[in-house]
Amino acid sequence: MSSEPAPLLALDLAGTFAFGLNGALTAVRAARLDVVGVVVLGMITALGGGFIRDVLIDSLPPATLLDWRYYTLAAVGGLLAFALSRHLRRIETPIIVLDAVGLSAFAVIGASTALDSGLGFAPAVLLGVITAVGGGTIRDVLVRRIPTVLSTGLYAIPALVGAAVTVATVETGVYGLPAALGAATLCFLIRVLGLRYGLNAPEPPETRGRGGPDEAGG
Amino acid sequence: MSSEPAPLLALDLAGTFAFGLNGALTAVRAARLDVVGVVVLGMITALGGGFIRDVLIDSLPPATLLDWRYYTLAAVGGLLAFALSRHLRRIETPIIVLDAVGLSAFAVIGASTALDSGLGFAPAVLLGVITAVGGGTIRDVLVRRIPTVLSTGLYAIPALVGAAVTVATVETGVYGLPAALGAATLCFLIRVLGLRYGLNAPEPPETRGRGGPDEAGG
Amino acid sequence: MSSEPAPLLALDLAGTFAFGLNGALTAVRAARLDVVGVVVLGMITALGGGFIRDVLIDSLPPATLLDWRYYTLAAVGGLLAFALSRHLRRIETPIIVLDAVGLSAFAVIGASTALDSGLGFAPAVLLGVITAVGGGTIRDVLVRRIPTVLSTGLYAIPALVGAAVTVATVETGVYGLPAALGAATLCFLIRVLGLRYGLNAPEPPETRGRGGPDEAGG
Repeated sequence: MSSEPAPLLALDLAGTFAFGLNGALTAVRAARLDVVGVVVLGMITALGGGFIRDVLIDSLPPATLLDWRYYTLAAVGGLLAFALSRHLRRIETPIIVLDAVGLSAFAVIGASTALDSGLGFAPAVLLGVITAVGGGTIRDVLVRRIPTVLSTGLYAIPALVGAAVTVATVETGVYGLPAALGAATLCFLIRVLGLRYGLNAPEPPETRGRGGPDEAGG
Repeated sequence: MSSEPAPLLALDLAGTFAFGLNGALTAVRAARLDVVGVVVLGMITALGGGFIRDVLIDSLPPATLLDWRYYTLAAVGGLLAFALSRHLRRIETPIIVLDAVGLSAFAVIGASTALDSGLGFAPAVLLGVITAVGGGTIRDVLVRRIPTVLSTGLYAIPALVGAAVTVATVETGVYGLPAALGAATLCFLIRVLGLRYGLNAPEPPETRGRGGPDEAGG
Repeated sequence: MSSEPAPLLALDLAGTFAFGLNGALTAVRAARLDVVGVVVLGMITALGGGFIRDVLIDSLPPATLLDWRYYTLAAVGGLLAFALSRHLRRIETPIIVLDAVGLSAFAVIGASTALDSGLGFAPAVLLGVITAVGGGTIRDVLVRRIPTVLSTGLYAIPALVGAAVTVATVETGVYGLPAALGAATLCFLIRVLGLRYGLNAPEPPETRGRGGPDEAGG
């Protein structure tokens, strides 16, 4: 990632910090873990998506292990969430907003990194989505929730839009900070507005009215 | 995978499509997800085993990301399952058969790909099993079920037989389409007949009569 | 791993065997699986952490697939646990002790392997922790438990101490068998004494008295 322009690096670091905070707040709320568990879940959420991306494009060791700012920000985000949890009466909103920030940043950076590594357009979009949803999916599995990417369509779709816009702007030669921020903002808005207005992707016809994803498994 | 003979490629693509359909039908039945969740789970089931195989043999980016037919078939399988779910009154049988098809195809292709990459016999058999059960295991974890590979011995064993026969035929120089189809058919029959006649591997003595794997965890 | 001195190889193999036994005993106790499930869970627990380590440092195929002693010991550990389960009236204690042995061995070997591969100090410590807790975390996810690394701080912390001491002794040029055994013993003692005396890391203030991690998810 060292070859990235500074503003895109900033977007990537912001996503890492947001996911670190988000994962740790999720740990406080959903699983009531101790300080180590909180920080570990924050770091896994923040670094997991990038790990998967770098493994799949064979850029190893992962960029986030080679650059101290990534793992430090992830850990600091986790510690901060632990310290703040006392003062957050309702942490639902910051959890959602931070998750949307990480999702947006990683969809854009993941897609552009995949293109840089030589992947074609469709696989690069796919990798953007994987980078964006990967950390949160591991987080959900570890605290035994159905992953958000499965339970609501309005999670993969904004990531897909952000990654696709990124790939399109790279392809047309207009990728840069404004395009990246635009793609990330678009992803963020779709995610947050989708939640705000309760938009959903179509459900399978035969299952309507039979209950939500929470009944699965357990 | 581009160096594979066409018939083996066809077997691999058939396995990918079968797992895409299977994962998506599982999503419809077990977790009642929306269309995006259904397609995502289908793609993860179809591509997951090959991702793990290609990561472990250091053949990256994964073959299934470089060849558009794989990810397209996985997605089409998922969409088709979503569309069909309305008309499938009982999807238990197709889920089982499609899973057995994917298991058989991936055990054979996984083992031969691992041998091609220079691994020895035993690791190649192990990789065949990992390729065969990997996608389904991720699928089960994501919808919070005890993975099939753990809860029933008659899942890993057919994969092991299919992979071992494949390795044996490569070693004796008779590997080719007939041998591959034979190994896959053997795996398929053991899996399906095992289910049909309720065969099981031995359980630990102390736990007999104390209940099934479904009581674990949650 | 072939370049490792024999005593360190012995430590690594001991950790592999301990985790194989541990994972299999966990399967017997927590999920009541059949013999194949027991062996598979033992092998995943024993080999999982090393797989993740070797993937992240790009040392592929994983050392444990190239050296037959690793996967054989993992499988033998699993089979032995299955055979022994009849005679173990209380398997709680061996599960805990074996887990602590694997944790200690893998924290030390993981950190030194990461340093050998060229990673810096902090990432090497992180990789030691990932190697140590990786296999057990996959084990816990597969049998649907909140992973130990999240639910108790006294699991990641001993691994962190063992890995950090290892990195410090490598850096000061005194790494060798005594230093490795010392670091592993320190990790082991912190883990076992922490369990024995019920030590815990601080919990988030707002969640005190609201219940344990077992309420999460499901």
